[in-house]
Amino acid sequence: MENHSEGKDATPARGGRRRAGGGAEARRQKRRGGSVQQLKFITRRLAPFEVLSEEGLSLIEENAETILEEVGVNIVEDDETIALFKGAGADVQGERVRFPRGLLRSLIKTAPSEFVQHARNPERSVTIGGPNLVFAPVYGPPFYRTLDEGRRYATNDDFRNLVKLAYMSPALHHSGGTVCEPVDLPVNKRHLDMVFNHIKYSDKPFMGSVTQPERAADTVEMAKVLFGSDFVDQNCVLISLINVNSPLTYDSTMLGALKTYAKAGQACIVAPFILAGAMAPVTPAGVLAQTLAEGMVGMALTQIVRPGAPVVFGSFASSMSMQSGAPTFGTPEPALVLYGFTQLARRLGVPCRSGGSLCAAKVPDAQAASESAQTLLPSLLGGVNFVLHAAGWLEGGLASCPEKLVMDADQLGMMHTMSQGIDLTENGQAMEAIREVGPGSHFLGCQHTQANFETAFYRSAMADNNSFEQWEAEGSKDTFQRANERYKQLLAEYEAPPLDESLEEGLTEFITKKKQAMPDAFT
Amino acid sequence: MENHSEGKDATPARGGRRRAGGGAEARRQKRRGGSVQQLKFITRRLAPFEVLSEEGLSLIEENAETILEEVGVNIVEDDETIALFKGAGADVQGERVRFPRGLLRSLIKTAPSEFVQHARNPERSVTIGGPNLVFAPVYGPPFYRTLDEGRRYATNDDFRNLVKLAYMSPALHHSGGTVCEPVDLPVNKRHLDMVFNHIKYSDKPFMGSVTQPERAADTVEMAKVLFGSDFVDQNCVLISLINVNSPLTYDSTMLGALKTYAKAGQACIVAPFILAGAMAPVTPAGVLAQTLAEGMVGMALTQIVRPGAPVVFGSFASSMSMQSGAPTFGTPEPALVLYGFTQLARRLGVPCRSGGSLCAAKVPDAQAASESAQTLLPSLLGGVNFVLHAAGWLEGGLASCPEKLVMDADQLGMMHTMSQGIDLTENGQAMEAIREVGPGSHFLGCQHTQANFETAFYRSAMADNNSFEQWEAEGSKDTFQRANERYKQLLAEYEAPPLDESLEEGLTEFITKKKQAMPDAFT
Repeated sequence: MENHSEGKDATPARGGRRRAGGGAEARRQKRRGGSVQQLKFITRRLAPFEVLSEEGLSLIEENAETILEEVGVNIVEDDETIALFKGAGADVQGERVRFPRGLLRSLIKTAPSEFVQHARNPERSVTIGGPNLVFAPVYGPPFYRTLDEGRRYATNDDFRNLVKLAYMSPALHHSGGTVCEPVDLPVNKRHLDMVFNHIKYSDKPFMGSVTQPERAADTVEMAKVLFGSDFVDQNCVLISLINVNSPLTYDSTMLGALKTYAKAGQACIVAPFILAGAMAPVTPAGVLAQTLAEGMVGMALTQIVRPGAPVVFGSFASSMSMQSGAPTFGTPEPALVLYGFTQLARRLGVPCRSGGSLCAAKVPDAQAASESAQTLLPSLLGGVNFVLHAAGWLEGGLASCPEKLVMDADQLGMMHTMSQGIDLTENGQAMEAIREVGPGSHFLGCQHTQANFETAFYRSAMADNNSFEQWEAEGSKDTFQRANERYKQLLAEYEAPPLDESLEEGLTEFITKKKQAMPDAFT
Repeated sequence: MENHSEGKDATPARGGRRRAGGGAEARRQKRRGGSVQQLKFITRRLAPFEVLSEEGLSLIEENAETILEEVGVNIVEDDETIALFKGAGADVQGERVRFPRGLLRSLIKTAPSEFVQHARNPERSVTIGGPNLVFAPVYGPPFYRTLDEGRRYATNDDFRNLVKLAYMSPALHHSGGTVCEPVDLPVNKRHLDMVFNHIKYSDKPFMGSVTQPERAADTVEMAKVLFGSDFVDQNCVLISLINVNSPLTYDSTMLGALKTYAKAGQACIVAPFILAGAMAPVTPAGVLAQTLAEGMVGMALTQIVRPGAPVVFGSFASSMSMQSGAPTFGTPEPALVLYGFTQLARRLGVPCRSGGSLCAAKVPDAQAASESAQTLLPSLLGGVNFVLHAAGWLEGGLASCPEKLVMDADQLGMMHTMSQGIDLTENGQAMEAIREVGPGSHFLGCQHTQANFETAFYRSAMADNNSFEQWEAEGSKDTFQRANERYKQLLAEYEAPPLDESLEEGLTEFITKKKQAMPDAFT
């Protein structure tokens, strides 16, 4: 069990009255059967795996500056942002904005290298940056797939189930954002339900809406109801995903949301979303230079709007089938981009987001698992700080899948163990055990094995390690089938974390008022 | 396509007349439809991922010396070996042999840090050690599983099919050894058929029999028929797997095979086979110290028998279910052992073997794929030199599976790309492409994308990257089903690599004579 200091420097004014992790309350929860022994976010003890030398990194950084200076970016339909960049020293020609070498890197210096995102339960607050690693579930799919129903459009019920499953998964440190798109709700109002779901059905930190600046503002208002206005002004309680329209383009929707959050002192992830070969060159070094150029623009804007606002450098990079143009995942090229990207982020001095349990597979089969593992393990080894899509992603992000979520969450638990490296204490060395057992005997009953029985090895909730005969007697179930049973069991065991009635009423009141103020829209 | 120098310093006297890789012969093969564009073994460009500091490594090395000095090993029913160790300076008390600190490490200094294992086709020869990585298929399972037949005992037909599939897999650089146990053949004669199968149905390097010293001697004799006696005496043409009876025990069977091969100048892999918690302590640092102590004993023996004989330090380490005692795979603890192990091997100055595509799963589903990936990727990143079980392993090594083999082989291809790191050439940087495309456009048709069309991304033979609709129209097949189709297609396309008739006759003659000399035995 991890037990890291979370480095929090403040306590929410209203939310988070109960500390579910210890003492009498934990025992009460345990009796109610609603307790989940959550894992604290990972603080890595392993040095990150690096693929680029100092020379290689400098080359890519210089290329990014060249892109910014010579090519620049388009800022589409956002005069305010263009004016802000002009004021900061950029060269503006219409919507094309170019940046003198070093300008953006210099502006980004005011961004914190790590920060706390507070949860309504302070035990669930996360530190983003430094040696820390936070796992959040899948984000964005319009479809939902289960073994029972196959694939269909996602609903708000599905959304709630995914939030509950993330809450029940100890190694998911974060509740995420659009865990699926609840397409049964009006487009212009669903953000209110989504944020409410995260607050009501989980006590982990969550993400804000970015589909319109006004929806971002609604999210901030709801956070103020939950945490109190003063607390929100001085602390990060929201993190939100700002994708760049690669190549080299920002639009007013995303920039509007970015500025709304940054002004409120809330965190943005500025993430070039790159399908290499379409939105960037096919080569990793090209993807990296473009990603750095694009990312610095959005990150610098947060600092112009509010110096010191928390911001995360993001990278979503996939390869592509050169035959069909379809995105491909779990391939070596995006992993190389990921390793290089984390190195660039560390040199920039900001937290980074990348990786996940990504796959192109349509069902949670071997392809899904290989591709996910080949993205997830680099996420850990490369030193990523925030991993979106860490669980539940299928089909290139088109479908959320509860079976995949519980399968992935099991893998995330393993990353906790891996991140801690090799224990070199006296107990870790186990010399007395070797002396005690000697040649030709076995260690099963020795004192050292008994003393380490509980914690010796990661215990998978998903792997079937039984004999062939027992596995066959139990129905020869594959992982998809076992995961189907497991997610249903978790939902059956789920109990909502306590939420003050007055807070819930305040949130409901805000939502009702907002919904009444406008007609439903479905496009 | 890789095109490394293979560092070969000699050419077989008889085998390997044809170079399948290039020129007229390649064109002829291509016309016959029997050509496979093989990949050369990997020469890594990435520095290995390391989890132990100098201090940690020294601690484990000192612990290994303490184990050898204080506890020692049992050498069971092998007076010759005991006498050899006594002569080299060991302390002998009955079958217990203890070693003064530093003795074994000093003896191992004569072992080469890398060596070439010659194949009958010189294009297929592999260099084992240094930055090189060689993939070999699964070894040892008594069972065979396919989607069509389920699980049953393996036969010689299955063995041949697995050899053919390994031959047809470009990223399997090696034909392996007991790719399955052909239980339809007599126990005392099947080694002859197994070695013949490797020679006849593949032209990649292969492994020798170790189940009796006499069978090892038969393998060497067959190698002499194939390569010529003088060539075999001066070059490595066989590599064989010597497992230690952990903890701290060697028996006369394995030592007899080891000495037979070492005397013949052929390579042994000395591999403690450790299910942590049963054959070693439950902690990685304990497993590592014991593995080093055990491994050094066998490796030193090869050098006493024939200084300079090629030897590989092996480690097979799995975790265990503390509930059932069953071995578990793809867990973080064995990966940590693997990373530490490769560091210890590099300091010892010998090539190392570990890793694989290991799993406890009974079918090639998501569990199989996750577990395999979580072992395979560390095998690459940690810097392993020889990866046995790289393809085809199921059910904790109890079953070989052709579907799993083609799935794993696809992953091995990805490791080729990953191993080469990020291309920082002008083409890799792709600055002209970024300048050409600029903001808001796409890279699909640009010159750089077209120029790199063939090689831009790893092309998976197994992943389905089509749209959901297309995948559904094609039957909604999962990976297991697609792999079933693929392995059958590969077998249908298979053509044996050419083998001189006189060599085949010589081998058949030897085998017939040996078989006639003793009655069949089935136990």
